[in-house]
Amino acid sequence: MNNNDMAVKLSGAIEQQDFKRATEAVQALRPIDIADVIALIKPKLAWQLLEHLPNRSTIFAYLDTDIQVALASVFPRAILAKIVGEMPSDERTDLYKHLSQEQRDVLLPALAQAEREDIRRLSAYEERTAGALMSSDYATLQAQMTVSEALDALRLEAPDAETIYHTYVIDKMRQLLGVVSLRVLILAPPEQLIKDIMLSSVISCEVNDDQEDVAKTIARYDLISLPIIDASGALVGIVTHDDAMDVASDEATDDFHKSGGVSTVIGRLKDVSVRVLYRKRVFWLVFLVFGNLLSGLSIANFEEVIAANLVLVFFLPLLVDSGGNAGSQSATLMVRALATGDVVMRDWFSLLGREAIVALMLGATMAVAISIIGYIRGDAIVSLVLAMSMMSVVMIGCVIGMSLPFILNKLGFDPATASAPLITSVCDASGVLIYLFIASQFLSIG
Amino acid sequence: MNNNDMAVKLSGAIEQQDFKRATEAVQALRPIDIADVIALIKPKLAWQLLEHLPNRSTIFAYLDTDIQVALASVFPRAILAKIVGEMPSDERTDLYKHLSQEQRDVLLPALAQAEREDIRRLSAYEERTAGALMSSDYATLQAQMTVSEALDALRLEAPDAETIYHTYVIDKMRQLLGVVSLRVLILAPPEQLIKDIMLSSVISCEVNDDQEDVAKTIARYDLISLPIIDASGALVGIVTHDDAMDVASDEATDDFHKSGGVSTVIGRLKDVSVRVLYRKRVFWLVFLVFGNLLSGLSIANFEEVIAANLVLVFFLPLLVDSGGNAGSQSATLMVRALATGDVVMRDWFSLLGREAIVALMLGATMAVAISIIGYIRGDAIVSLVLAMSMMSVVMIGCVIGMSLPFILNKLGFDPATASAPLITSVCDASGVLIYLFIASQFLSIG
Repeated sequence: MNNNDMAVKLSGAIEQQDFKRATEAVQALRPIDIADVIALIKPKLAWQLLEHLPNRSTIFAYLDTDIQVALASVFPRAILAKIVGEMPSDERTDLYKHLSQEQRDVLLPALAQAEREDIRRLSAYEERTAGALMSSDYATLQAQMTVSEALDALRLEAPDAETIYHTYVIDKMRQLLGVVSLRVLILAPPEQLIKDIMLSSVISCEVNDDQEDVAKTIARYDLISLPIIDASGALVGIVTHDDAMDVASDEATDDFHKSGGVSTVIGRLKDVSVRVLYRKRVFWLVFLVFGNLLSGLSIANFEEVIAANLVLVFFLPLLVDSGGNAGSQSATLMVRALATGDVVMRDWFSLLGREAIVALMLGATMAVAISIIGYIRGDAIVSLVLAMSMMSVVMIGCVIGMSLPFILNKLGFDPATASAPLITSVCDASGVLIYLFIASQFLSIG
Repeated sequence: MNNNDMAVKLSGAIEQQDFKRATEAVQALRPIDIADVIALIKPKLAWQLLEHLPNRSTIFAYLDTDIQVALASVFPRAILAKIVGEMPSDERTDLYKHLSQEQRDVLLPALAQAEREDIRRLSAYEERTAGALMSSDYATLQAQMTVSEALDALRLEAPDAETIYHTYVIDKMRQLLGVVSLRVLILAPPEQLIKDIMLSSVISCEVNDDQEDVAKTIARYDLISLPIIDASGALVGIVTHDDAMDVASDEATDDFHKSGGVSTVIGRLKDVSVRVLYRKRVFWLVFLVFGNLLSGLSIANFEEVIAANLVLVFFLPLLVDSGGNAGSQSATLMVRALATGDVVMRDWFSLLGREAIVALMLGATMAVAISIIGYIRGDAIVSLVLAMSMMSVVMIGCVIGMSLPFILNKLGFDPATASAPLITSVCDASGVLIYLFIASQFLSIG
């Protein structure tokens, strides 16, 4: 049964107040799958169903934030407070940030003191930092505990902790002393001390680190969770592997959008409004209109040679596009390599040499192709002009394409700003200039 | 100390046979960090160091495959067999696939029977499938075991298993009956039966599933590991969260490269040879040269109107680029949304309506911009021609850009093949035609 059919069936059952049938219909599903169905039914019915499901907080946490906000406004206050109280702390903070001031004023007094403080603390961190991503639902151990004491402590904390598979050992000042995995714990003798089995070189990130660095650290060291420390070195939260995977995917989407000349962040494409889409796209388009005027100015400068040799116009789009295409390829390779860390700033010079050789080979291949066409349509001189132009245009395109991401990075911009449209426009302007300059050297102006 | 300095220091110590100093230098580092340093020193010295490190198999597994192959040819056979025997089964199979026939013939007889069979079995799966990604180092439980028996079994298997945090419950035919997490195990009473605490609706993938689907499943359900079953439903392997994260990153890189008109897979950009780079890039470039000839043919058809109104050439790159840029934006948004699953095939029609409205707004904005410039450079009629052309070109570009990924998907190609260069060329050809057609309707031909 697909989600739409399921939603219709569920809505019917809830409207008839037949909660036995409704809960049975979803009981074999995973929380995220139930959330996908709930997203399709009316808020009034959705909360009635959630009220009857044992794992409602988990399901609620999987809903998109805008649906959570819609549901929050129909939930009775006591139920809302209960569900929000049970949510993972990172999801809870996200929801809180999206509530209206009115909704916050209703919710906050109904929450326990500890939860209120947790929300205040976590919502203070800037978006897209480790602090905004982290959860405060984690277990900790003391170095002087025995293994059996540690296991008892974990059993107590397990229901509330995001993970107990990696646990962090801290002192009284919450300084990180080590990490111990549950695998090591269950293999160790019960009387052994935690300090003797813990790994004391702990990989961690700071609260203000970029979320992208958090995801990369988790990926590099194959971690299940990563401890987050504040400026004083005290443990303040953890980020888990599944959150890191979501961040990596979102960051790839952002880079992808930028590479296509779309300002980020737009969220889920299906749900984005026309207004947002327009706003995120219009800047680059209009910016590039003015950029392209440069190409036009070059053309105006060579009006005479064009008037005398109209065949040049025939090849104009082909030549300038080829430079742009080669440049887009180079830029794409560089932008992604910089994003994944395969290439760093100091590699630029050594890569430039290789790029020049590749560009020479590509340019030569394409020069052969275009010179044949040029000979058929024009004559030997046109053919020569085209071959020389193609070589130059492709070379210049590749050098611009591979260098622009580095330059942007150096200037403090995201290298992904070197989008295909931007590269195309820059390469077009230089391509037109090169082509018409070479043509003007070889062809008569009538 | 950076990796290069560390490599120099290590090489010196090993050459003096001072292995105490060498091992001390790296002992605080994580295996992957040690692997990064080892990649920089000579193979002969590298294996001498590895011989003295307790976790050499883990370190060796983190090296790039080409460095593993280089090391394999200097290792004495007995040591190579020992290291390879201890490697995780998925990494071992990858290495085996990259060895020469000669190296395989040396290695295989030195391995234990079970390892030989494991290599044969795993290397039979097609690249980029779940089977080629999975590991056979996992623990299993029986449904009739008690919790304390299960914990004892896990303690026995822990040293060899990739993860013991999620363990799969199978029957005698290896059919998947359920999954139990270590968290649940340590919370349950010792005498409880596994069948009463296991979750019986297990999420799994099949050996022939695309690795991208495996990564998406792990991401969707926040799994630590995913069981892989064969056609008969029997458990044959697991894929862990860290492998899923690497796959997701590689797949994003592939899509990114395709979007820039580079055929995949090229591996790490820094290490790729000039020859491979040329081969992966030349196809699209030459293909698009011929594609762009269409633009040229349109121009040839309108030679008279161009000759009489050379101002048209001035605006040619600007107009056709704008269509291409708008189209690239649309394509980029669609390609990524299809890749992440935010959008599916049946959404095309509903998205088309929204896209048309956005395109209308974008086109109108840009038409205003270009008509002002047109009025300054030309006259009122040129200005009108430009405004009308810009509207049409942007509309057509957006519709092509958003539809091409769907069409390619429908035809069985990867939607990411709708690269910026391809979209640009298609939009350019239609842009030139539209522009010159509109111009020929309004402007005299002299």
